[in-house]
Amino acid sequence: MSEPAQKKQKVANNSLEQLKASGTVVVADTGDFGSIAKFQPQDSTTNPSLILAAAKQPTYAKLIDVAVEYGKKHGKTTEEQVENAVDRLLVEFGKEILKIVPGRVSTEVDARLSFDTQATIEKARHIIKLFEQEGVSKERVLIKIASTWEGIQAAKELEEKDGIHCNLTLLFSFVQAVACAEAQVTLISPFVGRILDWYKSSTGKDYKGEADPGVISVKKIYNYYKKYGYKTIVMGASFRSTDEIKNLAGVDYLTISPALLDKLMNSTEPFPRVLDPVSAKKEAGDKISYISDESKFRFDLNEDAMATEKLSEGIRKFSADIVTLFDLIEKKVTA
Amino acid sequence: MSEPAQKKQKVANNSLEQLKASGTVVVADTGDFGSIAKFQPQDSTTNPSLILAAAKQPTYAKLIDVAVEYGKKHGKTTEEQVENAVDRLLVEFGKEILKIVPGRVSTEVDARLSFDTQATIEKARHIIKLFEQEGVSKERVLIKIASTWEGIQAAKELEEKDGIHCNLTLLFSFVQAVACAEAQVTLISPFVGRILDWYKSSTGKDYKGEADPGVISVKKIYNYYKKYGYKTIVMGASFRSTDEIKNLAGVDYLTISPALLDKLMNSTEPFPRVLDPVSAKKEAGDKISYISDESKFRFDLNEDAMATEKLSEGIRKFSADIVTLFDLIEKKVTA
Repeated sequence: MSEPAQKKQKVANNSLEQLKASGTVVVADTGDFGSIAKFQPQDSTTNPSLILAAAKQPTYAKLIDVAVEYGKKHGKTTEEQVENAVDRLLVEFGKEILKIVPGRVSTEVDARLSFDTQATIEKARHIIKLFEQEGVSKERVLIKIASTWEGIQAAKELEEKDGIHCNLTLLFSFVQAVACAEAQVTLISPFVGRILDWYKSSTGKDYKGEADPGVISVKKIYNYYKKYGYKTIVMGASFRSTDEIKNLAGVDYLTISPALLDKLMNSTEPFPRVLDPVSAKKEAGDKISYISDESKFRFDLNEDAMATEKLSEGIRKFSADIVTLFDLIEKKVTA
Repeated sequence: MSEPAQKKQKVANNSLEQLKASGTVVVADTGDFGSIAKFQPQDSTTNPSLILAAAKQPTYAKLIDVAVEYGKKHGKTTEEQVENAVDRLLVEFGKEILKIVPGRVSTEVDARLSFDTQATIEKARHIIKLFEQEGVSKERVLIKIASTWEGIQAAKELEEKDGIHCNLTLLFSFVQAVACAEAQVTLISPFVGRILDWYKSSTGKDYKGEADPGVISVKKIYNYYKKYGYKTIVMGASFRSTDEIKNLAGVDYLTISPALLDKLMNSTEPFPRVLDPVSAKKEAGDKISYISDESKFRFDLNEDAMATEKLSEGIRKFSADIVTLFDLIEKKVTA
């Protein structure tokens, strides 16, 4: 067998390549972009926790310095300077990642704005402007926003009026997914692993394969989107095992941590297509609507204890990490 | 010692009477009003779960019949008739309770409206109208509403425009309490026992006396209200022990289940005053505001995992019991 053929064949045996071959766009979920090139992901997603982790690594000290210098020149008060420095840091990470991935980078709006539509819109516009000042088109950026009622309304306006593409994250329920599709957001990140965590801790049971409640959640959303022709990309996120990934092979996108990408790359386990748009259409239930009915959205979301608690917890965790990042940057801005 | 003196002296030794003597108005928390006369509570509070429990008892069949007859004559569809019958049932229970207690009865709005300000306002007005048609003045009724953002806004309008008195329930956080005081609601029901439940299950620890997180929550609210002169009545609710009650002696009101009222009546344990308006003023922190800042209210409430989860759970439970009550009544309306 010729060398290229061997390489092609070797590549084909690799679970990561099989996943890609199944129709799923693979995205790297990390701020530690030094490690992602070998996985050849199309896109990359970051979040406050990942940026904070990366910001503590000497490898990325240069990005911090650029951001801190920028902050010192922008803002009258320390508070303004720190905020501008952190925004610039997100963009610095985004810029570097976009030198590696051909597609888009997801950059998250400050989670403390998750219940403030207008503030989210303004922050998104500001981050896009910073990217554009650095020569990065908004076509290569997804603004990541928590899937609260307020976040979805902000994304609706950003997509409609500004052509700013949004990634609606911390999505744990069908209710949030339906509203996001109606808001015509570019992409959603329905979480998988954290849903499994909740069911394991509240029922004491374990869930494998197709019975994994996180897998079930993404499938239901995917089927519904395909049946009713919603263009919003379904990007499964937050995984506890390659098994969860395997059971979603064929979904539009999956954003995967470097650790699990490594496992996929070093495995030859078959990853046949599981989700596809055709069979999806037979599965989905009736069409429903939330986008103009805030109280119905809030009540139905509240009926889902898991989604209510995980969305709430997710916002708390990202907010805490943003505060830690601000403290880290403040020390440097005021040094 | 003369017989009346003996009786007076016996009365004074009773923990329930000592609680009353400490300055706390005692309220009976039950729908089973047949049992409360002996406790001589000033008021009584009901909720969907208590009404459902009572509605299943033969003792109260007559009230059901009155409500069902009413429903059959009010409404074009079965759905409308059932809703009207349930509203009338709440009023029937309220009427009977008010024959026993000298003060007010709390009647809860359908928990499924907890995220709908306008629907809550309309339901409150309708219940008050039904009471008034039965000769009961709105001065003897507290409309009970969940302390969501929407519920607090509804109560603000009801108190301001309609002079309808409200009892803001499912209150687990200082954030909700501050917004309720600013909305000038007549009374709030900060829960105690359910807060303890959450901390016990999430930390695995037990909490006694002053360290009980539910007791701490009510004290903080009480101190704040007294320091800043808020007229809203603080009525501790949901207790797991008489010890929790003892550690709140002196608070404005306490609504207590018949089982715990019985315990208090059959105990001679001293119940000295613990909370008082004077010392309260030294304890409270700075003044804060939420009533006109929805995103700050939602974010700060979200920062409190216990309050977010217990409010959400409380609305789910009351909603489920209302659905069961509707089913029970529908069978009779359509029989």
